[in-house]
Order: sequence, then structure tokens, then C-alpha cells
Amino acid sequence: MQTGMPEYVLGVDIGGTYTKYGFVNREGNCIGESYILTHADEPFTHFLVRLVQAIEESRRALGFEIALRGIGIGAPNANYYTGRIEKPANLSWGDVDVVGQLSRHYRGIPIVITNDANAAAIGEMKFGAARNMRDFIMITLGTGLGSGIVANGKLVYGHDGFAGEMGHVIVDPNGRMHSNGRRGALETYVSASGIKRTVFYLMAEYPYESELRHLSYHEMTSEHITAAALRGDKIALEAYEYTGRILGMKLADAVAHTSPEAIIFFGGLTKAGNLLLEPVKRHMEAYLFPIYRNKVKLLISALEGKNVAVLGASALAWNEIDSNMMVSF
Amino acid sequence: MQTGMPEYVLGVDIGGTYTKYGFVNREGNCIGESYILTHADEPFTHFLVRLVQAIEESRRALGFEIALRGIGIGAPNANYYTGRIEKPANLSWGDVDVVGQLSRHYRGIPIVITNDANAAAIGEMKFGAARNMRDFIMITLGTGLGSGIVANGKLVYGHDGFAGEMGHVIVDPNGRMHSNGRRGALETYVSASGIKRTVFYLMAEYPYESELRHLSYHEMTSEHITAAALRGDKIALEAYEYTGRILGMKLADAVAHTSPEAIIFFGGLTKAGNLLLEPVKRHMEAYLFPIYRNKVKLLISALEGKNVAVLGASALAWNEIDSNMMVSF
Repeated sequence: MQTGMPEYVLGVDIGGTYTKYGFVNREGNCIGESYILTHADEPFTHFLVRLVQAIEESRRALGFEIALRGIGIGAPNANYYTGRIEKPANLSWGDVDVVGQLSRHYRGIPIVITNDANAAAIGEMKFGAARNMRDFIMITLGTGLGSGIVANGKLVYGHDGFAGEMGHVIVDPNGRMHSNGRRGALETYVSASGIKRTVFYLMAEYPYESELRHLSYHEMTSEHITAAALRGDKIALEAYEYTGRILGMKLADAVAHTSPEAIIFFGGLTKAGNLLLEPVKRHMEAYLFPIYRNKVKLLISALEGKNVAVLGASALAWNEIDSNMMVSF
Repeated sequence: MQTGMPEYVLGVDIGGTYTKYGFVNREGNCIGESYILTHADEPFTHFLVRLVQAIEESRRALGFEIALRGIGIGAPNANYYTGRIEKPANLSWGDVDVVGQLSRHYRGIPIVITNDANAAAIGEMKFGAARNMRDFIMITLGTGLGSGIVANGKLVYGHDGFAGEMGHVIVDPNGRMHSNGRRGALETYVSASGIKRTVFYLMAEYPYESELRHLSYHEMTSEHITAAALRGDKIALEAYEYTGRILGMKLADAVAHTSPEAIIFFGGLTKAGNLLLEPVKRHMEAYLFPIYRNKVKLLISALEGKNVAVLGASALAWNEIDSNMMVSF
């Protein structure tokens, strides 16, 4: 082990468009942040060569030497157990051995991968709103809905490494069709695209005038809906109420599974703040089995605004280093 | 620690009518099994004195000395963290400190308590169908539906000790009323009483003749429904199909939370065997998010017919002893 030099891990967030990275120390301070274009249509090996070159350039540009203790990676459909990305929807690589291939470039240090929501959960536990919590649920609200569940102080990966897909629990078996063809999944209601679908449903259902009636489906974003709601737009407000009722109901189910201390939200939709959280909380409490009532905190990520994906990925690496240390005692 | 003598723990199952107990060794062999009437209307302290007397009588009657290493207790609404039973529906004791009071009689050994379904899960992991599993869900199908969730090799107690109340996840927010006044909980559909309610719904909904039309609500049991289904009774068969669809849908949600290797069923309704498991499996697979398909085993408890509640409670004690040993290494 290198000593004397400051210790860092590398956090990498592989997304459909950008792959971001940075070097993060134990306190969660990130240096050397940068990114490359993912170019997911190119072969994975080309991507990897470009990524390693960029990382090493950023490392040299730091101006001082660091001890690189590990690498953590967040990526869609990533499997912690196998180290692979398995058929992600927004990358054309098929099934690739990310950890195996990257370990040829970085030998002798732990390299771990998991999906973005799990990485966010570990980031929150290590550096954010879930410090000192042993049982909580992380919900990421982007184009879809991702989740990471922590129980007994450990991320729940499940038997196959794919636990925590709360975006795909079923709200209504005859409900909205997902782009994957399945019916009634939570993320078709609760996500940036889900709330837009709700606005379109409500514009069909009710006669109320709304500024959102001036926008086409492709023009409208969740920011438009939030802005309209803040101006008192009836359709937009009702869309948040509708979203809150459905999310609240499914969170009540989630609580009956793992009884978390808190549920922590991250992502674009959380910018709506209490427009979202107030109805979620009200409906969740109403749907909760009584023994759970008034116990579960609903929190916004403490890492909002920071590069959470990179921080989360780095926390995954620190977590691995720390738990290996415990085993070797 | 006593040595030389064979090592046993005491397993105790506190129920509304009977309290059963037995001495169980590491291999899951149970000796000195017996029971007392719970008399839940008497004060808890009276109950405890009768229980300790009965236990000590059974211990003397063994004919040889044992080293009592710990006590595990399964009871409704029992909280692992606090050692208490908190307002159980079928016991009039209110909130009682079971572990604290029992420890006055049995000093210097670990005494642990949890609810019956959690105890069954640990029993299955230690002695039954979940040996060597690190991620599974136990479902107990009695008058209600209980559950215990194991993730990363540990029972999920949750922040407050009450995790794993899958009987209270919501099937339909406008659905059946529970005796607690809540609407649409899973156990109002899937349990011995739930399937009877389904038969009554189906007899109202369809004109088909059925042998079940000769029985009153209070006469009918789930055994009648199973027997009728095995004779090809259309209403009874449809009741299992209906039950399987609802349970399958909610198990698909449970898989999206913790992605278990297996779901293990225990209790009266499992006597229906494939009448129940076949529709559950078929519907669960159809409702599952595709990455989980054809991975999750549905199993019947390997402890069926044995005194599972006592075995489970004893496994809880062995589990506690073993994990304390690991910590002290």
C-alpha cells in the first residue's frame, strides 16, 4: 500500500450520454472532476481506453500524487455480484464485464460496480442525509424511478444483485403501459415522464383551464409543471396530488417490507419540494399500517447540487474497503 | 458456562390460546415439548409464573441435565429491539416487557423475542428449506398473513423492529375492509379467512352450483374450500385462482424490493399444495419485472408438521448465540 500520500478513491458514473468521474477522499471531498462522452454506440473496449486515458490525464493534472485505494462505478443495470453491466436500456454494449476489464488497467485495488440508485443510497449513507442510519430507502426521481434499500446497515442487493427496483412495482395491473410493454409500473406514474403523463390524463379528464394546455407533449417538462403549480395552476396542482397519492401508497407498501427510518429523495422532481413531499407524506401516512405511522422521515438528499452519482460511486468503493478491513481483523 | 452436559436452548411460542415450548439442540432436535394454556385475560405476571413452573417441570422430567444456553420466544407483535410485546390483538396484556421479566428467572443467558413469522423465517434458515440461503422471504398463511424477510443473511427487523408486515400491503385502496377498519390489505384476500371471503364474493358474482353453497360463513373453513377444489368444484377452483393472482401480484412487488432466492410458505393454506402454488407462480411470473423472471423458487416449508413455532423461536436463540460469538472473535 502507498503511504504518506493522501488517500482517494475514483468514483465513476456511466450514463447514456456522459461518463463522469472524480477522486474522492474519506470525507467526501471530490477533486479532479471531469467527464467524457460515453458514445454508447461504440464498442465497450474503445470506451474503456478513452476513459482510462481521461482519468490518468485528470490525475496528472491534480499537481500532487494521490494513493488510489479503490474504484467505485455506478451504471444502469450494473450487477454488484458479477461486476457486469447487463443489457442496459440506454447503452448498446449488451453484457459487458466492466470490473474485469477495468482491473487490467488498475491492479491490486478493489473495483466495485452497482446501479446508480444503489450508489446514491451508499453515497447518502456515507456523506449525506443517511449518516448513522442503518435502515432507509433511497428513491431517485429522474426520467424513471430508481431505488436503493439499506437494511441492517447494508445495501440489499438480493440473490441476483438486482434488488431495489421499486420503479417496477405495480400500482394497477391494468394501468399505464411502460415503454417496455408492461402495465401499471410505479415509474409510469412517479417520475419526470410519469407526472407529465398525469398532466395529460388530467387535461383529458377535467375542463379546467391551465397554462399547460399551451404546450405539446414533447415540449412539456416537469419544470413547466412545477412552475405552473407554484402559480396555482389547478391541473398542475392536481398532478402533484395524484402523484403523491400513488407514491404515498407504494411507499406504505415499502415500509411494510423493510420499515425504514427514512425515505430519501433525489433527482429533478425533488425541486418541487413540498409540492411533492406534502401529498406524498399525507397519503403515505393514511395508507400505512398503524404501527408504522408518524415514524418514517421523508427527506430530500443532502447531496443535491453536488455530483451525487460520482460521490455515490466513490462511497461504494470506500464501503468496500472498510468492510474488507473488518473481515480481515 | 456449563460444560460436558448437552447444550440446548428453550424455544417458546406464545399464542392466543396455547403457549408451547420445548428444548432444542443445535441440530434442531426438540425434547421436553409441552404447553400451558395462555389465559390471556389473566395478568402477564401470573402467566409468567405458570410458564416458568411448567418449563422447570418439563426440564426435570427430561431425566438428564442440560446446559441451557439461551431462550428464544415467538409472539404476536413482539419487538426484537425492545424485548416487549406491544399491544397484540389477541392478548389483553397491553405492552409487556417479556424479555426483562423472564430474565429475572433465567439470568446470564441471552433471551430474545420476535414475532411468529420472523421466528419461522429464522427456523427455516437454521433447520429447514432456507439452509444456506442469504436472501429469502417467509410467508405464513394462517388466519392472517405474516412474513419475515431475510437479506444479506440477516433478518430484516427495520428501524423500529416491525419490518415484514406483508399481510398489510395494499392490494386495492378501495378493497376489502379489515377487522382493523383499513381497506384492501393483502391478508383480507390471502389467508384462511381471506379465501373464504373470496368464496363468498364468487358465490355472489357467479351462478355456478357449488357444494360450498350448503355451508354458512361461520361453518366454512379453508379445508372445505380445498376439499371442494380437489373434487373440481368451480367456485372453489376459481377462489384459488383469484387468491393466486392477488398473492402473485404482491409477491412480484416483494421481489422488486429484496430480490429473494426463494419465497417459502408455511401454514394451513399450504395444505392445498399446487392448488395454491401453481396460480401464485403463474401470476407472479407474469407480473414480475423481466430481469427477475424464472429465478425465484416458491417452496413449502421443510418444517411443516413439526412444531415450527417452537423450532423457530429456538433458532432465534441459537442465531443470537452464534452472532454474539462472531462479534467476540
